[in-house]
Amino acid sequence: MTQLSPYAKKHKVTVVGSGNWGSSISKMVAENVAANPDVFEPIVEMWVYEENVEVPKTSKHYDPSSPLCNGPQNLTELINHYHENVKYLPDITLPNNLHANPSLQESVKDSSILIFNLPHQFIQGICQQLKGHILPYARGISCIKGVHVTDEGVSLFSETIGRELGIYCGALSGANIASEIAKGLYAETTIAYDPPHMDSKAPTPKSGSPSASAVNIPTIVHFEHKDSSGNFSKVKLQPLPAEYPVVDHAFMKLLFHRPYFHVRVIHDVAGVSLGGALKNVVALAAGFVDGKAWGDNAKAAIMRVGLLEMVKFGTMFFGASVNSQTFTEESCGVADLITSCNGGRNHRCAKLSVERGIPVEEVEKQELNGQMLQGTLAAKEVNSFLKKKGLEDEFPLFTAVYRILLGEVTVEDIPSLIER
Amino acid sequence: MTQLSPYAKKHKVTVVGSGNWGSSISKMVAENVAANPDVFEPIVEMWVYEENVEVPKTSKHYDPSSPLCNGPQNLTELINHYHENVKYLPDITLPNNLHANPSLQESVKDSSILIFNLPHQFIQGICQQLKGHILPYARGISCIKGVHVTDEGVSLFSETIGRELGIYCGALSGANIASEIAKGLYAETTIAYDPPHMDSKAPTPKSGSPSASAVNIPTIVHFEHKDSSGNFSKVKLQPLPAEYPVVDHAFMKLLFHRPYFHVRVIHDVAGVSLGGALKNVVALAAGFVDGKAWGDNAKAAIMRVGLLEMVKFGTMFFGASVNSQTFTEESCGVADLITSCNGGRNHRCAKLSVERGIPVEEVEKQELNGQMLQGTLAAKEVNSFLKKKGLEDEFPLFTAVYRILLGEVTVEDIPSLIER
Repeated sequence: MTQLSPYAKKHKVTVVGSGNWGSSISKMVAENVAANPDVFEPIVEMWVYEENVEVPKTSKHYDPSSPLCNGPQNLTELINHYHENVKYLPDITLPNNLHANPSLQESVKDSSILIFNLPHQFIQGICQQLKGHILPYARGISCIKGVHVTDEGVSLFSETIGRELGIYCGALSGANIASEIAKGLYAETTIAYDPPHMDSKAPTPKSGSPSASAVNIPTIVHFEHKDSSGNFSKVKLQPLPAEYPVVDHAFMKLLFHRPYFHVRVIHDVAGVSLGGALKNVVALAAGFVDGKAWGDNAKAAIMRVGLLEMVKFGTMFFGASVNSQTFTEESCGVADLITSCNGGRNHRCAKLSVERGIPVEEVEKQELNGQMLQGTLAAKEVNSFLKKKGLEDEFPLFTAVYRILLGEVTVEDIPSLIER
Repeated sequence: MTQLSPYAKKHKVTVVGSGNWGSSISKMVAENVAANPDVFEPIVEMWVYEENVEVPKTSKHYDPSSPLCNGPQNLTELINHYHENVKYLPDITLPNNLHANPSLQESVKDSSILIFNLPHQFIQGICQQLKGHILPYARGISCIKGVHVTDEGVSLFSETIGRELGIYCGALSGANIASEIAKGLYAETTIAYDPPHMDSKAPTPKSGSPSASAVNIPTIVHFEHKDSSGNFSKVKLQPLPAEYPVVDHAFMKLLFHRPYFHVRVIHDVAGVSLGGALKNVVALAAGFVDGKAWGDNAKAAIMRVGLLEMVKFGTMFFGASVNSQTFTEESCGVADLITSCNGGRNHRCAKLSVERGIPVEEVEKQELNGQMLQGTLAAKEVNSFLKKKGLEDEFPLFTAVYRILLGEVTVEDIPSLIER
């Protein structure tokens, strides 16, 4: 331990994923890491799925005399040379202390903080490859939006990661359109971080270093989680060694908060995750109503009814672990709902389906280049889950959206279907 | 008492006011009155401030051979002849059982239900003229948006009406753009109705008529209200005679709810009223941010922060009588905020002021034909009240809006001013 830092060890941070949102988060995290050398190792690793990429001719970096601009190059090399993700976050300069790494296992070596930011379909595979290669006491934050809903229950991506890797993993979600944030435009987000007591009990002030923790608690905590079906899963958690700065809510703010990216840290991981999934169903409903040109009253009404169904879904299936205020007062709830109903893809495609008089599925084919809307998938999964529980009528707007997608009812039926 | 109705008396309904929103409310109320002849007297009176009006040449009623279309006519005569408020709600057919009445005092004669829907600056004068002419046990509902804020405290228009007339008066407010509702486009609203126990204790089932009340309770209740300065005002309330159908939440729904106008009835009168005032301050902030083209994240963030300041204002100054969910879950709160930030005048003028680089005051002059924005007035009143209490810093967004209006800070300062 040097005189300069009160901690024997510093946190090394790795971001797993480097798409548009992954690169944006990496940029902010690397800025904060650079600004807090007492707490963090200087270099942030960003795992990049290696691909061959050509520097676009429109890029400011394009220089026909440069070997890097002659034919396809490794994306990691381009990122590390130009400090720009020319493919997924063009025209945004990344900090010098952000290092693109094509090796998943090397990228997480010695990292005590793992930030997951990749498409949800890759979570399982990535976790399999990471097993045995991460620090056993690492802490995770999942920036992956949404939840996984089956007939049996609702599982959170953060918990899948935590269970697969045997670590505690929180969640980050908010009204966060990546391209706006990357430009430094003002935004907010919500982080949910609620590990078992292990972490919060650990720190005991050290003389001369009030915030450092002196006692390494050797206990291994079995973190029990009850999912929406009432099943418990147990994760063996290792406490963070006391040589590290404590990982708590203040730490999360230090790592993610920027002057233009305001962070609120709460405890409700399920609420944060549910918001990011269910808002897409509401955005479809808002799009339907906008397609009818029913005006601002109707749209606001649909959003409000949807917000209350989000609250009800959370409190009904996750009980006391979900706080209704997560939906009604946090960025991951009401604010993310507002952005999704104002301009997201789900809203746009639902609106077009009404305007063109064709099913949303058709609009998907016409507009999305083979990609699928998250809202239609969520609407189907949520309906299947509710149907199995016999609770479709308790969620009339979610059910109406599903039935409109099926063609069983029309948008004109929404007011009577949700009338109470 | 006839065999046809279980009640000896039916409610006669009067709407005081006939502008765009007053005429829209009158239309819906008259529709419900006609559909419930057991509960209501058939004719709804609408008091109209008499003026001379010409049938516009663009009106479908315009007929040069008709004496009513030759020069200015009394507005009430035109309304009663054409069943249309050709001046304030053109092209919308009003029900036949809605009667426009130019005499304030005659319009309220024998009415047990008084609905107030007029510009707030006329409340005092109208109440003065009504004194002694209304039924002493009448019940009121104020559809007047907002509250009256002075350095000394916040008073509700519904309470001003109640105190002046010695009656109980509830409030109606929501995401309610009148022109959309008049067309029958789907909308929601919130009614707050919370009279002292008097009313709810009164009904005792009569044999053969379970919902009728048999016992006329002679008690006169002194209804005490504690305003935001801690002052109590006392209103001598007379119980509704038991011959009338009970006026409770179900009654309010019967009177206002339509298939296209969904009503939720709650108890929180202060919350309902505050929402309609404070959202205009937030709409200015959202307009400023949109003027900068900061994108959807920033706008949603500003709306969320504003919503939380609305909650805080309500709970700080009205204590337990305000429910935070009124703001975060009801039409009068989050939904009205959404409509106001999407398209209202306050939002539009604030946006234009940034785009044109001129003060909001200038935009008001250029755009509003001498009318004043409610948001700028509310921002000033709220700031003056907060300043007197030394609480400006507790409401950083409200304070930022006020200081931007003054030119003391700029829109660029908002993120740092509201950073927590």
